[in-house]
Amino acid sequence: MKAWENNIRRVTPYVPGEQPDIPGMIKLNTNENPYPPSPAVLKAMRKLQIEKLRLYPDAAAKALVKALADYYDLEENQVFVGVGSDDVLAMAFMTFFNSDKPILFPDITYSFYDVWAELFHIPYKCPALDDNFRIRKEDYYQENGGIVIANPNAPTSIGEDITFVRDILEHNRDSVVIVDEAYVDFGGVSALKLTKEFDNLLVVQTFSKSRSMAGMRIGYAMGNPLLIKALNDVKYSYNSYTMNVTSIYYGLEAVKDVAYYKECIGKIIRTREWVKKELKKLGFTFPDSQTNFIFAKHRTVPAKKIFTDLKKENIFVRYFNKPRIDNYLRITIGTDEQMEKVLEVLRRIVN
Amino acid sequence: MKAWENNIRRVTPYVPGEQPDIPGMIKLNTNENPYPPSPAVLKAMRKLQIEKLRLYPDAAAKALVKALADYYDLEENQVFVGVGSDDVLAMAFMTFFNSDKPILFPDITYSFYDVWAELFHIPYKCPALDDNFRIRKEDYYQENGGIVIANPNAPTSIGEDITFVRDILEHNRDSVVIVDEAYVDFGGVSALKLTKEFDNLLVVQTFSKSRSMAGMRIGYAMGNPLLIKALNDVKYSYNSYTMNVTSIYYGLEAVKDVAYYKECIGKIIRTREWVKKELKKLGFTFPDSQTNFIFAKHRTVPAKKIFTDLKKENIFVRYFNKPRIDNYLRITIGTDEQMEKVLEVLRRIVN
Repeated sequence: MKAWENNIRRVTPYVPGEQPDIPGMIKLNTNENPYPPSPAVLKAMRKLQIEKLRLYPDAAAKALVKALADYYDLEENQVFVGVGSDDVLAMAFMTFFNSDKPILFPDITYSFYDVWAELFHIPYKCPALDDNFRIRKEDYYQENGGIVIANPNAPTSIGEDITFVRDILEHNRDSVVIVDEAYVDFGGVSALKLTKEFDNLLVVQTFSKSRSMAGMRIGYAMGNPLLIKALNDVKYSYNSYTMNVTSIYYGLEAVKDVAYYKECIGKIIRTREWVKKELKKLGFTFPDSQTNFIFAKHRTVPAKKIFTDLKKENIFVRYFNKPRIDNYLRITIGTDEQMEKVLEVLRRIVN
Repeated sequence: MKAWENNIRRVTPYVPGEQPDIPGMIKLNTNENPYPPSPAVLKAMRKLQIEKLRLYPDAAAKALVKALADYYDLEENQVFVGVGSDDVLAMAFMTFFNSDKPILFPDITYSFYDVWAELFHIPYKCPALDDNFRIRKEDYYQENGGIVIANPNAPTSIGEDITFVRDILEHNRDSVVIVDEAYVDFGGVSALKLTKEFDNLLVVQTFSKSRSMAGMRIGYAMGNPLLIKALNDVKYSYNSYTMNVTSIYYGLEAVKDVAYYKECIGKIIRTREWVKKELKKLGFTFPDSQTNFIFAKHRTVPAKKIFTDLKKENIFVRYFNKPRIDNYLRITIGTDEQMEKVLEVLRRIVN
């Protein structure tokens, strides 16, 4: 090994779900929205002037921030935007978790949290979910350098109510609490209104799920202006212009078309509730999902076998080879037509 | 101050050049290209299917990486892409500069280097440029934890030849040497071919200047596969999907249209050489620029006054209120028409 190699930061990277591109495939492995973005976005794609690409974008992405602030009834200084919620969360870890005390997050949750902690050399502890995959709020009463909770949690699909989040906040006035609400629009309860009361609460959301724009990489954080300013200071110390002109202009159209957005969410929830019933009939059990996916195991057939058999039919779901959850599948809710096909194949596999 | 505020990372952010948006303005303050991106990019903008926005992009941005690898005659595992060269450089700092020894870069150079060093708590030393704003290569013979040199340097506009870069590399086999070539296409000499010989050399370039795509945020690094893998590992530990679908698909069209790209560069160089002559006649002195900007001071009129007077006419150039360079202006090369107008106004200001 050469001398310069000693100075390389050693990491174990996050492994994203595979992104196959096979004609006719049913892709239910990375929780994308089965419906395209708003037609207003398409209009923006066809209209954007090439001249805009020549110039640096607005470093503050003000037009996008304003659209979000208007939608959530916030001031612009309460909103931060980034390149997907991963970028927002990574910057939040870098910005707020600079203590010798460990940060806390559940043992089963979004698997990027420990990757960021390792990357930034942040000490961390992972209290175990209970046997029903629920977060035990008492685990978050201990001293800590910060807290991050996904609500609804992934891959469990379980959402906790506002009293639960408030309880954790009441026990944690001295560190920043991040609530990662990537899936909240599918039936969860947002902690956004608690930001008025708790100035150490940061709520993070994304365009990748409910707004059908995973390909555009847009995420955002909401909280009191002091938190947002601290995030922006770090952003301007890392990359002044994170949001390119297409993210800004296509993104804001997605935010503004509220009717379309709600219609898609409604369709996904309807499909999900129907799929729940059908999966039960087939012998699957699962927590009662408040997200756009179902976290299911079968009574008799191992998850890994189902995963492999589905793949043979070009149906992609997510399998985690990890303790406690290695007999579960995370199945994204697609269109009715896609789910009909999935159920038909599952019927064959489990019978 | 509340307890949680103690854990906030304290930084002094980089201050980007202002991005005014005034009808009829002449914007020569952030070194953008005065010509729009390739017509092939416009075609891609009009053609991209909205369905692509719904799905996660390819985390490896393989199509864009391949276009760059083909253009520079490299293997795909020798190319890393990011959200502008700022993102690439920030990740390179995070990845390669993890030593107790100071990294080295000139006192007058791209003003983001010390910001990144501060952000990541990297010790650094800044050897002074000589009186002609040249890098003294002997300053880089001392022990260090890494080196970063902009070549051509900014805001000085001076490029060093390949012998110079090779000399620094020969004296630094034990740390990673980054050569930031944001401006190299306007007449500088790239160190790219030295990556075959020096496995610790990382060459960083951008789409923001010569490829007219500052608004798209695309930068890239080239070097031996071990460096590129280390960068990708850190990227996958930070944000799996940094490049959105528009960056990938619009970006690769810009790379492929070589004729258009060279034509624009040719026009800018012709304009620059003519502007040099005119500025001299007006009493300006400046290093012999190998970039798309000129770093000039006037014999008698203070830079700050010229800066302010130009602004009144909606002509924006860059002024740095910093030791040693506070009597200089950095003037981006625009179109012939824009530069005619600038020279006309300058004539009035200095006479």
